[in-house]
Amino acid sequence: MKDEDRAFFADWDSLEKERYCVFKYYFETPFDIEETAAHLCREQSTALWKRVGVDEDFRPLYGAKVIEIKRIGELKRPSIEAPHARGRSYSQVIVRIAHPHVNFGPRVPNLITAACGEGAFFTPGINAIKLLDIEFPKSYLARFEGPRFGMHGIRKTLGVYDRPLVIGVVKPNVGLKPKEFAELAYKAYLGGIDGTKDDEMLSDVAYSPTRERVAAVIEKMHKAEDKTGEKKLFIANITDEVDRILELHDMVVGLGGNGVMLNAMTVGLSAARMLSKRAKVPVFSHFDFIAPYTRHPYFGLTTQVVTKLQRLSGFDGIIMPGLGDRMNTTQQEVKDNVDLCLAPWSDIKETLPVPGGSDWAGSLLTMYRTLGTKDFSMVPGRGVFGHPAGPEGGARSIRQAWEAIERGVAIEQYAKTHVELRQAIEAFGKA
Amino acid sequence: MKDEDRAFFADWDSLEKERYCVFKYYFETPFDIEETAAHLCREQSTALWKRVGVDEDFRPLYGAKVIEIKRIGELKRPSIEAPHARGRSYSQVIVRIAHPHVNFGPRVPNLITAACGEGAFFTPGINAIKLLDIEFPKSYLARFEGPRFGMHGIRKTLGVYDRPLVIGVVKPNVGLKPKEFAELAYKAYLGGIDGTKDDEMLSDVAYSPTRERVAAVIEKMHKAEDKTGEKKLFIANITDEVDRILELHDMVVGLGGNGVMLNAMTVGLSAARMLSKRAKVPVFSHFDFIAPYTRHPYFGLTTQVVTKLQRLSGFDGIIMPGLGDRMNTTQQEVKDNVDLCLAPWSDIKETLPVPGGSDWAGSLLTMYRTLGTKDFSMVPGRGVFGHPAGPEGGARSIRQAWEAIERGVAIEQYAKTHVELRQAIEAFGKA
Repeated sequence: MKDEDRAFFADWDSLEKERYCVFKYYFETPFDIEETAAHLCREQSTALWKRVGVDEDFRPLYGAKVIEIKRIGELKRPSIEAPHARGRSYSQVIVRIAHPHVNFGPRVPNLITAACGEGAFFTPGINAIKLLDIEFPKSYLARFEGPRFGMHGIRKTLGVYDRPLVIGVVKPNVGLKPKEFAELAYKAYLGGIDGTKDDEMLSDVAYSPTRERVAAVIEKMHKAEDKTGEKKLFIANITDEVDRILELHDMVVGLGGNGVMLNAMTVGLSAARMLSKRAKVPVFSHFDFIAPYTRHPYFGLTTQVVTKLQRLSGFDGIIMPGLGDRMNTTQQEVKDNVDLCLAPWSDIKETLPVPGGSDWAGSLLTMYRTLGTKDFSMVPGRGVFGHPAGPEGGARSIRQAWEAIERGVAIEQYAKTHVELRQAIEAFGKA
Repeated sequence: MKDEDRAFFADWDSLEKERYCVFKYYFETPFDIEETAAHLCREQSTALWKRVGVDEDFRPLYGAKVIEIKRIGELKRPSIEAPHARGRSYSQVIVRIAHPHVNFGPRVPNLITAACGEGAFFTPGINAIKLLDIEFPKSYLARFEGPRFGMHGIRKTLGVYDRPLVIGVVKPNVGLKPKEFAELAYKAYLGGIDGTKDDEMLSDVAYSPTRERVAAVIEKMHKAEDKTGEKKLFIANITDEVDRILELHDMVVGLGGNGVMLNAMTVGLSAARMLSKRAKVPVFSHFDFIAPYTRHPYFGLTTQVVTKLQRLSGFDGIIMPGLGDRMNTTQQEVKDNVDLCLAPWSDIKETLPVPGGSDWAGSLLTMYRTLGTKDFSMVPGRGVFGHPAGPEGGARSIRQAWEAIERGVAIEQYAKTHVELRQAIEAFGKA
């Protein structure tokens, strides 16, 4: 290794750890792995590390540094075909890089720029690269507000502490007039659902302005609360241009709404942070645009990184790609993301994990077993609103499924005496 | 095809075209291609398209519709390994879908949700999918402001109309104190550069607060303008949390700054639109986080879509992955993106294309020939600030390269009588 490159390596224990965020990457290269890792550090930090004609070295203070590197395998072809690829074999490498956060500060966009911007993705000799994880020092985390309400705040709103939550996505997701929408939500509330929400595709649209839709739902929600004796939740999707988000939040709160949602990746995580700092009600994210940069196994970033960034940005609940074929996830990935919502993390509150994906009464046991916790919410759509008996029956079928789980009875058995559960199994159980 | 699916097909000429944006996708599926395309429409629009027990159909008004579909090939393995993939062969399909924009309105985040959100990327039977293009009707485009200044506004600021612009990225990109930074910019201005800019990694950081850096550069910029008789540009990177962007813009403008930059993908395009609507100086984008979702040839979205969205969001200049091995682009892709900046597009102004990537004096002819226009800017970093004679010599070498091009002389020939160009060739010409 050249001296030039050696300066981008360091012994982690020799560094002042609070000064660094640690970025963990997978990458492939046909070249020398240490030299390439040095380039990865250089590109994401100092690039040219001195002025021409000046005797100085910016690397000690501002340079990113390799603190761990290992070769884990070899490929004959790179994971992504590059227009300019060369080389007969590609080393697969895991590297941990300590990056001084003085370079970007406690700001979400600038952090993303450092970890997965031009530096990481346009390093010479690296075509396929995936950001696997970011570790943050305590003093850096202390600069973030995190969720204002968090999972416990949401549970407190509902007064439900001992079971998973059920939040129904009102369907048809687009096209309903406000009163029609509210009527469907009302039926689901009566059937025992904890909350309802707008689909990620529904927003402040001409045929259903947010003001009218929220007003209609809140009226029905209160009526259902009176009838059932249970507290209920409505999550309004306030995804919009970022200069309208606070206005929409205030409108929702003014109408008595008690939850809002942002399509996190399409408005940007910084917009989420702006909102969550000021929010008077829990803020949920929808995963939406996440797949294009997380699905490839060897390229982009992991959903785990995205979950960390979302919790850091202050979401009280994170709707994430959940279990099931349609979601293209592994059980481990979903479980990791749920764990990352709930794990102790400095002073940052736990956020409610909400794995989503074509769920119905029959999914509940699988979710509960796979996730190993009651601290999650499901977000059924068709499983409630496409139920043969309508949303009231759909909501009831899921409450019945949980009763069966609590009693240790198979849902097929429990369905013999619970008609809505039986209807759900008949309608959705064959998929 | 089932009747259920047939309703998601339409003859384009039978539709009221102004009501639709047209999304063009590539996708792979092991299943029936028409049925799968119908699912793609359903997932991105109405999903459940009627209420249980109500005789209605939301598809005519709100459903996305296949208007063109063709099978272009077959693969034995899908382009991305799916945890739940099945099937022995995968059809490669191109589809054009007319999506009613009443579903999302003239708002960037909601448009992204519709075109590349859960609907597109989590359709059953589709694992690899790439959004290739979006076509907008005139009445939809009319709801966007587009660039305020555009390419012509930038040229007017500089009074340069007849050649490509040269904007140097001050290097070392991180670590310089404001006065050191300004001194380097000053030298580059004296050498004949049109503008200088912050690197995408440099922002309002503790060791170089934006206020101090901009003040220092502007003072030097005016001095250089007096000395050279040329107008100059400085582009301050105001990438930050979205609730600070307008404040930073106002600060820069208050200090006499005449350009700002956002890392478009890390702050989000909506933040760009918010800024560009109010901007008093041209706004540039940096491509930054673009690679994770555009590089894969069969997955994500194309850089061409991103360029369109950026122009729509109001950027006056778009810094994009340019030519050269490091950028992992093809010449055609770069040329397409440059063309998309400059093509007539309803009432939306042309934006200045800025293909970036390790450029120096010797890159200019290649860029000019490949792009086929003088209407672009280059953004050399090391090619100016790493020049053996320092930034003044570096800037001069690029002006000399353009003189050579204008006279139809090879730069090697012209270098015989122009020392800075010769030094540049010696330093950078071997890579």
